[in-house]
Amino acid sequence: MIKNIDFIAMAMPCSFFRNAKRYAHSDKNMAFHFTILKRDRFSKARLGRIETDHGSLSTPNFLPVGTLGTVKSLTPEELVEVGVEAILGNTYHLYLKPGHETIGRLGGLHAFIHWEKPILTDSGGYQIFSLSKLRKISEDGVTFQSHIDGSTHFLTPEKVMEIQRTLESDIAMVLDECIPFPSPYEYAKASMRLTTRWAKRSLQVRREGDPALFAIIQGGTYRDLREENSQALVLMDFQGYAIGGLSVGEPKSIMREILEWTTPLLPENIPRYLMGVGTPEDILHAIMLGIDLFDCVLPTRNARNGLLFTSSGKMSIKQAQYAEDGRPIDEMCLCYTCRHYSRAYLRHIYLTHEILSSRLNTIHNLYYYMKFIKGLQEAIQEERLQDFYKKFRQQREGLDPECPIHIQNNWGYF
Amino acid sequence: MIKNIDFIAMAMPCSFFRNAKRYAHSDKNMAFHFTILKRDRFSKARLGRIETDHGSLSTPNFLPVGTLGTVKSLTPEELVEVGVEAILGNTYHLYLKPGHETIGRLGGLHAFIHWEKPILTDSGGYQIFSLSKLRKISEDGVTFQSHIDGSTHFLTPEKVMEIQRTLESDIAMVLDECIPFPSPYEYAKASMRLTTRWAKRSLQVRREGDPALFAIIQGGTYRDLREENSQALVLMDFQGYAIGGLSVGEPKSIMREILEWTTPLLPENIPRYLMGVGTPEDILHAIMLGIDLFDCVLPTRNARNGLLFTSSGKMSIKQAQYAEDGRPIDEMCLCYTCRHYSRAYLRHIYLTHEILSSRLNTIHNLYYYMKFIKGLQEAIQEERLQDFYKKFRQQREGLDPECPIHIQNNWGYF
Repeated sequence: MIKNIDFIAMAMPCSFFRNAKRYAHSDKNMAFHFTILKRDRFSKARLGRIETDHGSLSTPNFLPVGTLGTVKSLTPEELVEVGVEAILGNTYHLYLKPGHETIGRLGGLHAFIHWEKPILTDSGGYQIFSLSKLRKISEDGVTFQSHIDGSTHFLTPEKVMEIQRTLESDIAMVLDECIPFPSPYEYAKASMRLTTRWAKRSLQVRREGDPALFAIIQGGTYRDLREENSQALVLMDFQGYAIGGLSVGEPKSIMREILEWTTPLLPENIPRYLMGVGTPEDILHAIMLGIDLFDCVLPTRNARNGLLFTSSGKMSIKQAQYAEDGRPIDEMCLCYTCRHYSRAYLRHIYLTHEILSSRLNTIHNLYYYMKFIKGLQEAIQEERLQDFYKKFRQQREGLDPECPIHIQNNWGYF
Repeated sequence: MIKNIDFIAMAMPCSFFRNAKRYAHSDKNMAFHFTILKRDRFSKARLGRIETDHGSLSTPNFLPVGTLGTVKSLTPEELVEVGVEAILGNTYHLYLKPGHETIGRLGGLHAFIHWEKPILTDSGGYQIFSLSKLRKISEDGVTFQSHIDGSTHFLTPEKVMEIQRTLESDIAMVLDECIPFPSPYEYAKASMRLTTRWAKRSLQVRREGDPALFAIIQGGTYRDLREENSQALVLMDFQGYAIGGLSVGEPKSIMREILEWTTPLLPENIPRYLMGVGTPEDILHAIMLGIDLFDCVLPTRNARNGLLFTSSGKMSIKQAQYAEDGRPIDEMCLCYTCRHYSRAYLRHIYLTHEILSSRLNTIHNLYYYMKFIKGLQEAIQEERLQDFYKKFRQQREGLDPECPIHIQNNWGYF
């Protein structure tokens, strides 16, 4: 509902609270603590909580991607309203623009972007290998050309730590080489071993007050390499373990196999993070294997392309069938968009390239994702994940036939 | 501040309030009433209130432009939060996309765009003559090609009334020919007389329940034509009078002269609307001549181009000097943007083409405009408009030297 404006407040010339919290978190030791609160009896799923200097984060959880310091089109208040508890920032992008030192001088990433809750920053590895030109890897690090202006940059594991320290991230990732799919065995092996040496170097330059540091397990599609890498990294003192190199074009079946090999090798009481994944089906599968954290551009990027998640399947809002459809995107949804706007309006503003289209679609898709996550958390808490899974399958069956059947074949739980 | 999410509400499957108000205003008689509450002693400025079926609107007031059914980048709630009381919708654009009949079937423009307060729709005249191709005017109406797909359309004064009726606008405008600057005398005269005949035809097809209908005074830059047109139109039974054909490229001095000729010829107790104007200086000048309503794309379009209004002048946020500037746009401003974001952040997201940039800049510029309007209203109410004007001049002097001096020369009030 529409609110009244406070013209008294508007007329106040002072700005006492404006800068008060901008520098609040500088020079503090970063706290990081992970607690498992409940374990599912039928799968490896677990409910937990990560505590950081910027508040706590329930797990399992999904982090939307705030590439350049904004989850595209939304304000931090809107993210919180749809249930987001933490976001991901892209080190590669922020290093290039506006530069980590600029952000550091302005009080760190939280203050810069007006986000008070936890931030996980990636290492830039994925972007260096997917976006930049003329990459050259050496034992020391990686030389690459910016995708923006072609300027040359050299990043080492140590430098990437320094960048994330300057950003005042809550959770930092080690620099890794993210190899494409498919990659030959020997290349995958050499790359994985280099990533392991880089991870060790990252640990060696840790300082008091640094972000929590997560390692990234690589090894391509090769089981022995994934196993070797997991064993090597769990011997080191990381505060979390990510599974990297997935969702890079490999078939779903391979991704799921790799997860099934790798996840059981990770320490039980340390958070596990599946990078760049994925669809609700992927997330449900991985949660039941014991994954705690996810990030993906899928809900936000799809939204900007007019592709919406609904309880009865995907919807492409541009379709002519919605031209005079007065219903909300999803009759079951209570997001801001579904409470106030029709499919017809959303189609109209999508087709006319209105900025509001990206906003309303993003709100809806993120609400869908966060409600899904919240439902999963509650199901674990209330010991009914088995039921949640069955209902999810029933609902999605026929809508996206490949995924649920695949889950059924690969999982032995129910 | 960040709010907590209500997960109980998120989980509720019902949507009882979703469509409740969508069709609330159909089949009602449109009410329209204008009351002058106070007159300034030193100028022609007046404080008033317009009442409509969608609530009241204080005057003088400024209406942001919601071209295609959205004030670009903002939600209705955000408009209300910055103090907006009414918006303008473009009949030309809405007629072409998604079509007025579609909007009508979906419950009218208010329901379609989720805006509960007053809407003024223009007649499309300005867009037909500025945007469309191959215009051909006859006594009957105007044939033109859509700027989108080249399709041919024929609009008459009666058709334009029907479109605005179908949109369920609160205030409709008559179809007019908006001539360019400069236009020869004979052309301006013939066009003005055609517009007058069209205005008469518009009145003749009025129905009970129609929007309030405003006439548009044309006549180019010619004093006798403006006078002739004013005299002709005030004899007819319109609920408001607009001054059209200004802000089309003519020098400020000419625009102000025309206003000074025309405004005194308009009926005292009927709202006066200056279409497509303008800068804060233009608005202040016109309000002191007795104008009540304004619309303009300036604050919103400038915002998307990174041009911001501040209490100390204009600011182009892309400038390198703001790269590490931790201050808000305007230290005196309490808008959402100024409370939470630095110039450095706003520059960063403007340069990286983030959608949030358009949003935050639009919030700031509209807040600036609406605070200016509210300040003017309060000054009239409290009998200190003379003081308001002097302070405004002092503040702007040197910042935009042309305008304040011009006001000084043309106005005899202070």
